[in-house]
Amino acid sequence: MNPRSVAVIGASEDQTKFGGRLYRMLLHHGYEGTVYPINPGRDTLFGLKTHASLQALPAAPDMVVLALPRDKVKDQIAAAAERGAKGGIIITAKFSDAGPEGAAIEREIVEIARAKGMRLIGPNCLGLISAANRVVLCSSPVLERKPLPLSPIGLVSQSGALMATLFDRAWDRGIGFTHGVSVGNQADIELCDVVDYLIADPRTRVICTYIEGIKDAERFVRTARKARAAGKPWLAVKAGRTEAGSKAAFSHTASIAGSHDVLAAVCRDEGVTLLDDPNAMILLAAELARVGERPVRRIGIFTTSGGGGALAADAVSAHGLELARFTATTEAAFADWYSPGQAQNPVDVGGRKSEAKADLARATVAALLDDANTDGLLLPITTAPDVPGLCAQIADGVQGERGGKPAFVVMEPGKAGDGGRAKLVEGGVTYTDTLGEAVEALTAWATRAPAADAAQAPARPGDIPGQAPAAAATLNESDSKALLAQYGVPVGADLTAASVEQAVQHARSLGYPVVMKIVSPDVVHKSDAGGVRLDIQDDEAVAAAWRRIHDDVRKAVPQARIDGISIQNQARGKLELIVGARRDPQFGPVVVVGAGGILVELLPTPLILRAPAAPEAVKRLLQTLPVWPILAGYRGTPLAVDAVVDAIVRASWLAADLGSQDFEFDINPLIVAADRCVAVDARIRIGNTEETSA
Amino acid sequence: MNPRSVAVIGASEDQTKFGGRLYRMLLHHGYEGTVYPINPGRDTLFGLKTHASLQALPAAPDMVVLALPRDKVKDQIAAAAERGAKGGIIITAKFSDAGPEGAAIEREIVEIARAKGMRLIGPNCLGLISAANRVVLCSSPVLERKPLPLSPIGLVSQSGALMATLFDRAWDRGIGFTHGVSVGNQADIELCDVVDYLIADPRTRVICTYIEGIKDAERFVRTARKARAAGKPWLAVKAGRTEAGSKAAFSHTASIAGSHDVLAAVCRDEGVTLLDDPNAMILLAAELARVGERPVRRIGIFTTSGGGGALAADAVSAHGLELARFTATTEAAFADWYSPGQAQNPVDVGGRKSEAKADLARATVAALLDDANTDGLLLPITTAPDVPGLCAQIADGVQGERGGKPAFVVMEPGKAGDGGRAKLVEGGVTYTDTLGEAVEALTAWATRAPAADAAQAPARPGDIPGQAPAAAATLNESDSKALLAQYGVPVGADLTAASVEQAVQHARSLGYPVVMKIVSPDVVHKSDAGGVRLDIQDDEAVAAAWRRIHDDVRKAVPQARIDGISIQNQARGKLELIVGARRDPQFGPVVVVGAGGILVELLPTPLILRAPAAPEAVKRLLQTLPVWPILAGYRGTPLAVDAVVDAIVRASWLAADLGSQDFEFDINPLIVAADRCVAVDARIRIGNTEETSA
Repeated sequence: MNPRSVAVIGASEDQTKFGGRLYRMLLHHGYEGTVYPINPGRDTLFGLKTHASLQALPAAPDMVVLALPRDKVKDQIAAAAERGAKGGIIITAKFSDAGPEGAAIEREIVEIARAKGMRLIGPNCLGLISAANRVVLCSSPVLERKPLPLSPIGLVSQSGALMATLFDRAWDRGIGFTHGVSVGNQADIELCDVVDYLIADPRTRVICTYIEGIKDAERFVRTARKARAAGKPWLAVKAGRTEAGSKAAFSHTASIAGSHDVLAAVCRDEGVTLLDDPNAMILLAAELARVGERPVRRIGIFTTSGGGGALAADAVSAHGLELARFTATTEAAFADWYSPGQAQNPVDVGGRKSEAKADLARATVAALLDDANTDGLLLPITTAPDVPGLCAQIADGVQGERGGKPAFVVMEPGKAGDGGRAKLVEGGVTYTDTLGEAVEALTAWATRAPAADAAQAPARPGDIPGQAPAAAATLNESDSKALLAQYGVPVGADLTAASVEQAVQHARSLGYPVVMKIVSPDVVHKSDAGGVRLDIQDDEAVAAAWRRIHDDVRKAVPQARIDGISIQNQARGKLELIVGARRDPQFGPVVVVGAGGILVELLPTPLILRAPAAPEAVKRLLQTLPVWPILAGYRGTPLAVDAVVDAIVRASWLAADLGSQDFEFDINPLIVAADRCVAVDARIRIGNTEETSA
Repeated sequence: MNPRSVAVIGASEDQTKFGGRLYRMLLHHGYEGTVYPINPGRDTLFGLKTHASLQALPAAPDMVVLALPRDKVKDQIAAAAERGAKGGIIITAKFSDAGPEGAAIEREIVEIARAKGMRLIGPNCLGLISAANRVVLCSSPVLERKPLPLSPIGLVSQSGALMATLFDRAWDRGIGFTHGVSVGNQADIELCDVVDYLIADPRTRVICTYIEGIKDAERFVRTARKARAAGKPWLAVKAGRTEAGSKAAFSHTASIAGSHDVLAAVCRDEGVTLLDDPNAMILLAAELARVGERPVRRIGIFTTSGGGGALAADAVSAHGLELARFTATTEAAFADWYSPGQAQNPVDVGGRKSEAKADLARATVAALLDDANTDGLLLPITTAPDVPGLCAQIADGVQGERGGKPAFVVMEPGKAGDGGRAKLVEGGVTYTDTLGEAVEALTAWATRAPAADAAQAPARPGDIPGQAPAAAATLNESDSKALLAQYGVPVGADLTAASVEQAVQHARSLGYPVVMKIVSPDVVHKSDAGGVRLDIQDDEAVAAAWRRIHDDVRKAVPQARIDGISIQNQARGKLELIVGARRDPQFGPVVVVGAGGILVELLPTPLILRAPAAPEAVKRLLQTLPVWPILAGYRGTPLAVDAVVDAIVRASWLAADLGSQDFEFDINPLIVAADRCVAVDARIRIGNTEETSA
């Protein structure tokens, strides 16, 4: 990241070419190391002695950068590795991004480089913009700007154009970056390698990332833990968040929790803050870098117009933040400065008394930040007679403050606000042009995971089997419940009857009311096939249900082998949950908990946990589920939360034990009553078996 | 709105004063009528002959504008009215906005003016900016810009600063306005008066409004119908949307549907499009003005980078819009121009073949707009080698298109995008700087109410009482259900027992299982007081429940008068709804329908309809409820939707008949089964009675 010398292969003075622009930008930004332009057709380029080839260099370059046609890349990387270069950046595209043929060449290139200990960034990237090291190896037109602002924020992006774009807008707002790296196809160096560098870099305090796909899930988790241990907030925007989850026929679990949901759960647990909007991410990074970590919930609003204040207050409330109620001290001060009824939150400077002090905006902002009841400020600025003067006062007020609270200024006007924008940047305060960005940044800050202690491995309950369950199979309801029962998950009693007489006996022994369900390896969706009868109250009803189930199933699945009918207690409860699990291709076994019954499609937001899960984490996260009020008994009796937590933990251990292979299971429903919970139906698939398509 | 002469009271050359700035702006923008500066201390101001007073004018001015201290306003308005002025604008604040004293003066001033036929805008406003008439009566610094852009969009705002701010940003983007009016306190002329003017104005095609409060609800509805009849889209941003609904103790209805929700329902039914963000409103207005009404759902995305395209696709999907799938014609064209695998939606111009045509961006945009499978485009533009050239091509492509589809360009860079922004505006195409604004505008467009036929008054069912029910009272469950039954709402059989023996008789006559409920005027929350027992299966259980109810209620409400115990059939169903109604202080009687039972707090988004409601409207809107899939039987048996519709319509007639006074009622729950629905419990309050606090 800080090479002492750089060889630019394909350097030229031609500003229509990648190599020409990149070479000029390196010089433009005052790189302090040695530059070796390489171009066999020229003696000098922009006054620097030019070399015919890598072989012709007087010394091995630390870094080689190239933007050649794809066919020439391999030979040049081989030559650079041979010549002793430590690193290379390949701008050129159409490798693994363009299909299998390109991917093969890409692998070959990486092998050639690695054999000589050379590391590569790219291909298909936009290079490196390191303001901290004055190393700019990037051809983007945004780099005409000079000098590049420097703030303690590092950025790694899987999209080069997005990186340059974000930089350009942030620079306008006085926000700089230590280092920006476009990692492209991540053939060798991947996003987490650069994050590791930023964690170690003393000039970087906040890390921003734009992610399209995770290359190595365990590495991602390790890196997140390192960032947290180092006290460096890691913010991320992930593309592909609305990609439809795979619609597996087997279980609800897969369809209600796609891969993005799993990543979001991992980020939540590992302290990586996910945002939707990359500009909001950078705004948040700038304020985090300026004031440091602190909790944020109660927002003070300072504005120049009632309308701006009202819309900001709406947005604050709509996002679950709180409008601060000021302390008596603040209220007393404001009563001196503002007309009666105008000194509340939002504070509208337009409501000043005519004799108010000249530096009213500065004093108000300072008082709002000093107020013990505010955690942060939102300052929507509309047009006003002297916007630049007002913004200078705001910058003074924000910077003069000692409490270290975030302040998000929203510059609402167009060009009429430019003078004010300049004053803010001069005063060391950043801004955004849209309320939406500021509120997203504030909301992300408010919901940032508290810096939890280093995650401890959950303890395995002593009473569950010590080893992984058996071979690939799709288990029927009985076998699924038996396996869950081995892990200590409470399951309902379940007796299979081979005849109607036996069914009546079983029902009597279990006690009415009972449920009857078809037992058949050929009937996966039992209810849809008419294979389930509920609420059976007496012997006669058992006999009637026996006939109906046989008739209906024969109609629905004529060739089905019927192994009997299962007789079960009719479980009663106040709430149905689904507890599922599956192997995420990236993050391994995960448990998914959601509302069951009719709620499964109405409240689709599930809880996702990596397996095995600790009881404390399960209990804490259950409180974030939409159905928590029912579990907690906000209206009526509290339900058996501890039993639910225990069942989920035990299910998570089964998931963990199954996790070395592909698997899925659903407990659907887990019926929850005031004193207990019970798994009423369950299905487990271990390995990729034929039956999954049934 | 188009005065032939304007008197500026308090005109000066002093640009630190409202009057000075306003006077200069009027001249600056080339007002073509006669200007009368009024200032007793000067002979001329900016070269115009200046008059000492209104009385001294050679002729009556059409319009008078003043920004004097509050104490001087009344006399000047009186003088203007006397002199024959037709209209006045009062910029001055601290009238009804500052409390009762100011409100009294404000009323007096309006009376003085009206007595002489003079109309007033303001007070506490920023005045009038009419580019169409070249009448600028506003002191805002944004008005230095000249000439003011002109587009067929009118704006009325209850916040003056917000109007000027929105104009400034819109003007940067090439969006102009015919007229902008800041209505301030609306002492005389109110928002709907100006909307009426804009409806009649042939130069205005789209109407934007910023609303803080509705002054006259019926007027609002009439004006909305006029706008729709005239084919002029009316867009609105309403502040105060997250204001907590009044938490009435009496019914759920009030707490789940605040006054903003009622306004939103009225806007939905009357074709007014509500948005959250005023900049998104103006962006939507600009595209609506350019291409006219059309349905929008399937979005094509054109971008300069994979990252920008991915985030745009995420945002499109997250907002319920659809990514277009191109026709074979488009796919064939793109296969010629783009690398394999790069020609899908989103289309990334970076994925062009190296031999692609020079005007690829123009051709691609045109092809996307011509595609029969797209309804609109989203174009996120990140940095690229030649952004201005690219933007010029985009403008060509958008303007060359014949289908009339919206195209929202998002300029992602900071200053590096300015050249491109200028090219877009030159080419007659607008843009936004943030994806969020563009997606909000597209989403609002997609969900705009279809231009329904003029609303017909619903027909009163023949079998309901012909007149309004009786006097103020809080009705108990029995009486409430009896009144609902008169209106034809199906209610469960309900027999009150005075003794345990009678209870057993009633239960036998109704048939088991039954429900037992306390009957007491002193017990409002029957369940909480232990006054309800469900699922009673036999005579013995009736006797046990009788004792338990008496014991529990005595404990919970010791002084309660117990009038007996009600015996009811235990209704069975698949879904519980709440059907409530109340009198909205602005819009009169409304019916509120939501999920009941445990869902009431989990799915709080209710449906609101003005009463009486037509069956077609009820049925259409039920389909927007989160519980619609259960009603429609997406998983299992369809429920009795027509019976639910009928019950809601009948409840709405009761609400309409009660609507001349304050009232509230709840049917909670309305239990819905496959073949019928039944009101199981209900409470009605008519008028403001003491019992509401119980």
